[in-house]
Amino acid sequence: MDEKETARLEAFSDGVFAVAITLLVLNIKIPPDNFLDDPNLWQELLDQWPMLLAFVTSFATIGVMWINHHRLFNHIKRANTGLLLFNLLLLLMIVFVPFPTALLAQQYAVHPDQRLAAKIYSGMFVITAICFNALWRYAAHKNRLLSKNADPHAVRAISNQYLFGPVLYAVAFGLAWISVPASIVLNFLLALFFAFPGRKPRSLPDA
Amino acid sequence: MDEKETARLEAFSDGVFAVAITLLVLNIKIPPDNFLDDPNLWQELLDQWPMLLAFVTSFATIGVMWINHHRLFNHIKRANTGLLLFNLLLLLMIVFVPFPTALLAQQYAVHPDQRLAAKIYSGMFVITAICFNALWRYAAHKNRLLSKNADPHAVRAISNQYLFGPVLYAVAFGLAWISVPASIVLNFLLALFFAFPGRKPRSLPDA
Amino acid sequence: MDEKETARLEAFSDGVFAVAITLLVLNIKIPPDNFLDDPNLWQELLDQWPMLLAFVTSFATIGVMWINHHRLFNHIKRANTGLLLFNLLLLLMIVFVPFPTALLAQQYAVHPDQRLAAKIYSGMFVITAICFNALWRYAAHKNRLLSKNADPHAVRAISNQYLFGPVLYAVAFGLAWISVPASIVLNFLLALFFAFPGRKPRSLPDA
Amino acid sequence: MDEKETARLEAFSDGVFAVAITLLVLNIKIPPDNFLDDPNLWQELLDQWPMLLAFVTSFATIGVMWINHHRLFNHIKRANTGLLLFNLLLLLMIVFVPFPTALLAQQYAVHPDQRLAAKIYSGMFVITAICFNALWRYAAHKNRLLSKNADPHAVRAISNQYLFGPVLYAVAFGLAWISVPASIVLNFLLALFFAFPGRKPRSLPDA
Repeated sequence: MDEKETARLEAFSDGVFAVAITLLVLNIKIPPDNFLDDPNLWQELLDQWPMLLAFVTSFATIGVMWINHHRLFNHIKRANTGLLLFNLLLLLMIVFVPFPTALLAQQYAVHPDQRLAAKIYSGMFVITAICFNALWRYAAHKNRLLSKNADPHAVRAISNQYLFGPVLYAVAFGLAWISVPASIVLNFLLALFFAFPGRKPRSLPDA
Repeated sequence: MDEKETARLEAFSDGVFAVAITLLVLNIKIPPDNFLDDPNLWQELLDQWPMLLAFVTSFATIGVMWINHHRLFNHIKRANTGLLLFNLLLLLMIVFVPFPTALLAQQYAVHPDQRLAAKIYSGMFVITAICFNALWRYAAHKNRLLSKNADPHAVRAISNQYLFGPVLYAVAFGLAWISVPASIVLNFLLALFFAFPGRKPRSLPDA
Repeated sequence: MDEKETARLEAFSDGVFAVAITLLVLNIKIPPDNFLDDPNLWQELLDQWPMLLAFVTSFATIGVMWINHHRLFNHIKRANTGLLLFNLLLLLMIVFVPFPTALLAQQYAVHPDQRLAAKIYSGMFVITAICFNALWRYAAHKNRLLSKNADPHAVRAISNQYLFGPVLYAVAFGLAWISVPASIVLNFLLALFFAFPGRKPRSLPDA
Repeated sequence: MDEKETARLEAFSDGVFAVAITLLVLNIKIPPDNFLDDPNLWQELLDQWPMLLAFVTSFATIGVMWINHHRLFNHIKRANTGLLLFNLLLLLMIVFVPFPTALLAQQYAVHPDQRLAAKIYSGMFVITAICFNALWRYAAHKNRLLSKNADPHAVRAISNQYLFGPVLYAVAFGLAWISVPASIVLNFLLALFFAFPGRKPRSLPDA
């Protein structure tokens, strides 16, 4: 029954990730009818590049968060109300992503010198990284909800890698005060970094 | 074959819950272009707080309803046409949630003194709670569709907790006549309350 | 491997059904800001009743089509390219439903005396019923893709009930020439009728 | 554990395919209120035929890409970070499809003589075909991620058929310079072509 419980949790989460990642495309706007001749359309699309960059960055981030969710639930095998609530909190952040993505692209298109939207965008990823840590530490604390034959080296590797999450995303958040494109690019690189699993430690300190 | 029947019912329901919970974000509007400089944007976002509160409350409510749906189907193991129809009725209410959520936020932003949208919002949750009861009582009546080894204490705990659902949501509905924010906050607290399973009774009266 | 093939076909179809049924709610419009005080809002919502009726009818129809899809795939256990294409054709019709639903509600709100949208709406269900028949007859022809232990009485019951589908929906289509509300109500009743499985025949004629 | 890994990869991908294919319908616009009387509505719908053709072509293409994804994962049985990233890249293209579809229909409705949108539309399918090849070749290279009992003839048949993908879609891309409708029709025919599995080769050259 526990196995079944995390199975449905994963199915529901997969659905939410899949819908959120696909809704991102709704933010890319068709130019109005009087800009649809070839030269104007070309110009309009070129002008939308911040939207495209934000779209790809958010796509990569949600995609890699799905990979990580999937990786955590290779180890988490039991569910309780606490886990369900932490998971809902994480999904709330995921579902929210299309909004700051559109906000960032929209503000950058009109006021490339303004930075509030970029701060909100990066700030949201800091919170998401914290939610990921909370979910994992809640499940892994004294192996509370992990599989009985979970590899302690793999568990430790995840815990170690995740320590860096909020810190690294906080750097991207700080960068938003200095340069909006640099902040977006760092968010994209962080998505790539978290696509790869953490290195397993040689020796295990006391857990 | 029966097992398979509820498996696909759960998969379809998971999909509907996942899409409905994600569509909520489409209600949060990007401010128009001439309000996208930092000071105006900040103000616009602060002014959207009722939308954010309604977004989070509806997200929590749909999320917790998913948890409860999942909990019921730990016991329900067979499906018949009646169950399929009661489940569709419940999903109809879930799918509808984004509309009164947006209505509430929109009316509160323009006319914080008006209450019709808040009454519709809370009233819908009363009906949803009644649908949940109907689904469960239809399945649990004389163990009609329950697993043969369903724990009678757990079944009874659900039945007891669910008795309070329509009553408690009716209180939130009544509160909407007095104070819109108080009604929303109570709806949020009720979502938290139903996230936790009911207490198992010590002794079982005649079922 | 065959089992796995229909499993993923069902999962994909469930997803499409779930998204299509949830997108229906996007058609219900929030009244503009200057109509959001209580008396105006009340009036606006009352005026939207054709949209609500169309929303509920389309929800019921997609929901019951999902029930029937599910029922067919209790018997269909193998997949080939033909089945995949017939299934895609059926899903194309399902995915399309939100458009004529919105069209019907919109036209009825503005021109209750006009009938083109109601004809399109009902006509689409005639085509969908034909697609359902095509899918089923392709799979059931000489038990091509059915489970080896499929109950021939149950198979025959489905074939018999489905014969009536296009005919009954054609009646609703014809009704649209006379009365739009009568046509919608008949579509709703047909959804209820197809929620229940067909009666198993006493004796089996030559298949 | 590997089996489970591709199972969840498939579930997430199915979800993304299902949402993307359903979002296509959001591009079909309801005519404005003053064009909703029967004669005007009829005319408006006839004028939308390029949107309908693009809708059906994109639906068929996404649907057939799902069939092919499904076919590949009958052989791919293990997952690693590389596969997850190639799969995300492919899903990025799928999720993007509704945008160039709407762009094509919109431009063709206003400027049937202009071709930029048709070039973007066909160009995107060239890139998608390349992504499909990359995913497959990454997994099939020295049977890296294939099932141990994968049929080498079937594997080779896929590799051979997929070689033609980018080339054939490039022809449709080239056609967009000459005739927009011809390019769309060719894209539709290519979707049908890839719905059918490739022919198994008689003899196997050195792999």
